[in-house]
Amino acid sequence: MVTEIRMQGKTESGLVNYLGKRINEANRTGIERILSVEPVLVDVSTALNVIPDMTPNTILHAGPPIEWERVCDPMKRAVRGALIFEGLASDDREAEGLMKTNGVKLSPNHHHDAVGPMTGIISPSMPVIVTKDLMSGKMVYSTFNEGGGKVLWFGAFGSETLERLRWMRDVLGPVMKRVVEKAGGISVWNILAQGIQMGDECHNRHAASTNIFLKSIIEPLFSIDLSRDTALQVYRFIAGNSHFFLNMTMTGCKLAMDAARDIEDSTIVTAMSRNGTDFGIRVSGLGDNWFVSPSPLLLDALYNPGYGPDDGAPDIGDSAIIETMGLGGFAIAAAPAMASFAGGGFQEAVGITKQMGLITITKNSKFGVPALDFEGTPMGIDIRKVVETEILPSIDSAVIHKATGAGQIGAGIVKAPYECFAQALMAFGKKYDLAA
Amino acid sequence: MVTEIRMQGKTESGLVNYLGKRINEANRTGIERILSVEPVLVDVSTALNVIPDMTPNTILHAGPPIEWERVCDPMKRAVRGALIFEGLASDDREAEGLMKTNGVKLSPNHHHDAVGPMTGIISPSMPVIVTKDLMSGKMVYSTFNEGGGKVLWFGAFGSETLERLRWMRDVLGPVMKRVVEKAGGISVWNILAQGIQMGDECHNRHAASTNIFLKSIIEPLFSIDLSRDTALQVYRFIAGNSHFFLNMTMTGCKLAMDAARDIEDSTIVTAMSRNGTDFGIRVSGLGDNWFVSPSPLLLDALYNPGYGPDDGAPDIGDSAIIETMGLGGFAIAAAPAMASFAGGGFQEAVGITKQMGLITITKNSKFGVPALDFEGTPMGIDIRKVVETEILPSIDSAVIHKATGAGQIGAGIVKAPYECFAQALMAFGKKYDLAA
Repeated sequence: MVTEIRMQGKTESGLVNYLGKRINEANRTGIERILSVEPVLVDVSTALNVIPDMTPNTILHAGPPIEWERVCDPMKRAVRGALIFEGLASDDREAEGLMKTNGVKLSPNHHHDAVGPMTGIISPSMPVIVTKDLMSGKMVYSTFNEGGGKVLWFGAFGSETLERLRWMRDVLGPVMKRVVEKAGGISVWNILAQGIQMGDECHNRHAASTNIFLKSIIEPLFSIDLSRDTALQVYRFIAGNSHFFLNMTMTGCKLAMDAARDIEDSTIVTAMSRNGTDFGIRVSGLGDNWFVSPSPLLLDALYNPGYGPDDGAPDIGDSAIIETMGLGGFAIAAAPAMASFAGGGFQEAVGITKQMGLITITKNSKFGVPALDFEGTPMGIDIRKVVETEILPSIDSAVIHKATGAGQIGAGIVKAPYECFAQALMAFGKKYDLAA
Repeated sequence: MVTEIRMQGKTESGLVNYLGKRINEANRTGIERILSVEPVLVDVSTALNVIPDMTPNTILHAGPPIEWERVCDPMKRAVRGALIFEGLASDDREAEGLMKTNGVKLSPNHHHDAVGPMTGIISPSMPVIVTKDLMSGKMVYSTFNEGGGKVLWFGAFGSETLERLRWMRDVLGPVMKRVVEKAGGISVWNILAQGIQMGDECHNRHAASTNIFLKSIIEPLFSIDLSRDTALQVYRFIAGNSHFFLNMTMTGCKLAMDAARDIEDSTIVTAMSRNGTDFGIRVSGLGDNWFVSPSPLLLDALYNPGYGPDDGAPDIGDSAIIETMGLGGFAIAAAPAMASFAGGGFQEAVGITKQMGLITITKNSKFGVPALDFEGTPMGIDIRKVVETEILPSIDSAVIHKATGAGQIGAGIVKAPYECFAQALMAFGKKYDLAA
């Protein structure tokens, strides 16, 4: 198919040049819009209160839309857990029944201005962070990161999960709402720009960013009228999870990429996302459509002892919005500690970041990679370049068990599937009469 | 002189080989001892209470011993300020008189198991951190870092300086004593090992290390019985100074290098230190002697607007103990943000770290440089190698004004002077009959 498009280009080079110019201009507009976004954590609320089209009977999930039958095991576990947490079901069987009979609506985060890592489940009464683009006033939402252990985002559920979710709803959320108010907002880019100077690629490694986030909330947390024990409980929960800032990063990245949506003629990828079954992308000039293909397994990940690629669910989560915005796998040269995931050393990590430069439109000078003399991170994936070069977006990811509810079993790098990009380019050619 | 030593080596190669073997063995012992040290911040006290041979009439300073007449202007200012703070003098003139008439003893930190950055002044009633080597039980002391502005360590003094010093004595010290007790000790290496993964070279850049230190004290600070306002005051003071951990780093490095002192036959440099007039080194096999030469100016530093090399005092501070232990300038490849000080980009920084490998004995695997695939930092300066290669230790440093009390005016890299090493090698040859 792609060859076909290219051949058309060759025989009708006038048209292609004309289109190429129009596309490049549209993409420049997209990049400008992305770079103009200033995401700031401005509030904490409850999903039902603030997320558009959220209802008491809606569960949001990561990735492109999917029917319950095709949902992977860990996401099913997380949904059932959320239904029990919500009191919509009293046990797994009831929860399963609800989902099978469409008693509860399953809907993608991305259709509700929201994002969630891994299973990405957001249920109505969960507390959510509210990140606002100061330039446009737009909002994006996500949950607080649950941390490690038996947690919904890793498709694990138990009594401790329920207890944690209730504490997050009853304590963490309300306290953080006051903290964020007292802090007068917390800039996402500001923290990530520092994080990337401190060895975070801002997806699988958020250790420095989370420390910097902590630094920005200590004063409000211990200033507001609150018992010392509660303040310390909240502090411990955040300080004990080096991924705490991940969900906030994702809201910032979604705000940035949403700014580039719906630009006529633009070939910029505005979202990459996976539901554990399908991997989907959205493209600026192609409206709300998802271009999907089977989500890949993480064949080369580093697995916990006793686990291997056969145990992992296919890649999952909205977190690839980070790579869509040029961080994470695209910025891996900033995080040599992640180089082992690249199957080698620091030079391999640099190689990946350089390679991502070949399928993107610009370098984002907000995020300078120290070891590349502060060269900006490669940003703005162009479906034309992916199809032309066959270089696939490199995504830093985690692996969760495909069947047992064991939660996270590994982490590594996965390549986005070529097919989505080829499909999108075909659709683009069709819509814009490129291959007509 | 050096050529002479080398020629002797050539004509009496049997002796040199024999000596070479003995020296290498002694140096191996030194390295083992350095690597065995486990520095932990265990207490906070007052200089007079804990520092050996401290008296109510003693002022400790950075660098090798020096008479008052030869002390540089910024150190004089700091000493006078300390005397006023101590109530030993009521103004500058009285303070100057006291020093001129030997009414107060001026003594090097290094002679009292202590270290201090820049002017390095420690006066009797200042609060000091107590860092203990868990392996040997030895202690090393330093002040708390005063931060920026009019501060003694930068040779600046004013009413705000006095106020800050009093607050540090009356509030910071006592609170931190309780915090350190409650924390059960804080490992210096643990924090530095993380810091070096996060872009700190652990001398001029301590941003990440200070964040990690903060993380290790938040819980005790807000748990002890203390007013919220006081806890927040202490928090703000530390969080507002990205160099706060510097003094603690220095205590750890001195403990490590002191472990290698007084080893017969060893050519390991156990201290490099400057008083703003002289640059001095100590060598393991050469006892308590300092080998000194004029302290260099920072010709290639980055100066604040309006200032240049002509305004700076010669290099000053005990902080070169950090380079003696293989961090700071020796680890600059870990801190690309410091590369501009290296007169270039990241590759220049890598070049310096690699070069330091040519004058040192080992790589310290406790501190892996991320961008060098976690190769350890070059450690254990061998005076033979410095003289042989003429490669000079590279030290990250700051510049303070030589005459006006303006405080810090720049920062950059300075090379240790060759003469100290040549002198030391001559003395070594003499003591061990190498050149007899």
